[in-house]
Amino acid sequence: MMDKKRKRTPLLRGEAPRRGGGFPMSNIMVIGIAGGTGSGKTTITRKLIECFGPDVSVIHHDNYYKAHHNMSYEERTKLNYDHPNAFDTDLLIRDLKQLKKGKAIQCPVYDYSIHDRTDRTVTIRPTRVIVVEGILIYESRELCREMDIKIYVDTDADVRILRRIVRDVRDRGRSLESVIDQYLTTVKPMHEQFVEPSKRRADVIIPEGGQNRVALEMVIERVRAHLTQN
Amino acid sequence: MMDKKRKRTPLLRGEAPRRGGGFPMSNIMVIGIAGGTGSGKTTITRKLIECFGPDVSVIHHDNYYKAHHNMSYEERTKLNYDHPNAFDTDLLIRDLKQLKKGKAIQCPVYDYSIHDRTDRTVTIRPTRVIVVEGILIYESRELCREMDIKIYVDTDADVRILRRIVRDVRDRGRSLESVIDQYLTTVKPMHEQFVEPSKRRADVIIPEGGQNRVALEMVIERVRAHLTQN
Repeated sequence: MMDKKRKRTPLLRGEAPRRGGGFPMSNIMVIGIAGGTGSGKTTITRKLIECFGPDVSVIHHDNYYKAHHNMSYEERTKLNYDHPNAFDTDLLIRDLKQLKKGKAIQCPVYDYSIHDRTDRTVTIRPTRVIVVEGILIYESRELCREMDIKIYVDTDADVRILRRIVRDVRDRGRSLESVIDQYLTTVKPMHEQFVEPSKRRADVIIPEGGQNRVALEMVIERVRAHLTQN
Repeated sequence: MMDKKRKRTPLLRGEAPRRGGGFPMSNIMVIGIAGGTGSGKTTITRKLIECFGPDVSVIHHDNYYKAHHNMSYEERTKLNYDHPNAFDTDLLIRDLKQLKKGKAIQCPVYDYSIHDRTDRTVTIRPTRVIVVEGILIYESRELCREMDIKIYVDTDADVRILRRIVRDVRDRGRSLESVIDQYLTTVKPMHEQFVEPSKRRADVIIPEGGQNRVALEMVIERVRAHLTQN
């Protein structure tokens, strides 16, 4: 048995970062959490916040939906919100870079009920762990480059649509028909075209998302090690 | 910022283990490393040994290939070594249970050159981390139940066959034709029938195996946390 207080081994130090990724042991660790709608991204994000509290801040890609103030409500409802072009990812990347420099940002706030960006912003402080969450965050190679750990939550499509129905019909008051229609016309095709292929860029794939306690413990210990060392 | 020496949160304590799995924080942690031929299982296993040395012991499912002393060499070469029935998994499970009780085992030794179990055994001591490695270890539900963390190394089939060719032709002196023939007649069909579906039982899926430094660091920190606490 080795001394429990053994020094950390230098095994993985000094190696080139994989696929041009960030440096995991830098002062600020950026964790991507991607996966299809209803995959369990939010649960994992919530557990990290429960576990590490004020050391974690979260950026939701959804808040970076492009503003469409010049369109009518009717026009805005017809946009495809599951396509990468629906997001102002460049702004997210700029904001993330600011956070990594230790500067606070003003994160835009999106309002689903009007399908538009609001005039409000929320201040996000630079914390030692930053979670970037969204279905399409790995679709942008440039955004990927800013991340130290890229997690993809992989849940079966049938389970995901059931969760989405519960969320949208029960919690958001939408009709079942509208949820099904949106799912089949944009959510599913965009998932297959952009979300699923972006899984190739993930470092780690977690089946079943937030209910997967074993995987969650691995993520938590990795974050804990970062916080202990930085 | 929180105190770096904060207490461990009780967040994940007291929850029921997922899918009847083991208890990660018990004294001995069993880690499964599965994945198709050439996926990178061995590299991950090796890195864990490099990192934690005598705290880790490894059980290779391959060493539990059934003995066929009563068959001729000719007959033995015709067996399907990629089918779950080729293994004496019951013996592996018994041995693993012994180790978890803190007892050393005599692990059988398999000789590929004669396609048979030898009379030799190697002593495996009970260590705080036990790695069980093999392509088909998740095929057995009973074996899965003995594991605390089930890792599946997921590498594309084309990359895997290229690695197998290099290993078998260059390192083991086999002919290219025999490697291709074995791959197409048993390795590939058995992979699709048994190995790939067993991925469903994994807690974590690691793309690209041993070259995936980010995922490796997560595994390493999880093991380190276990060793620090036990």
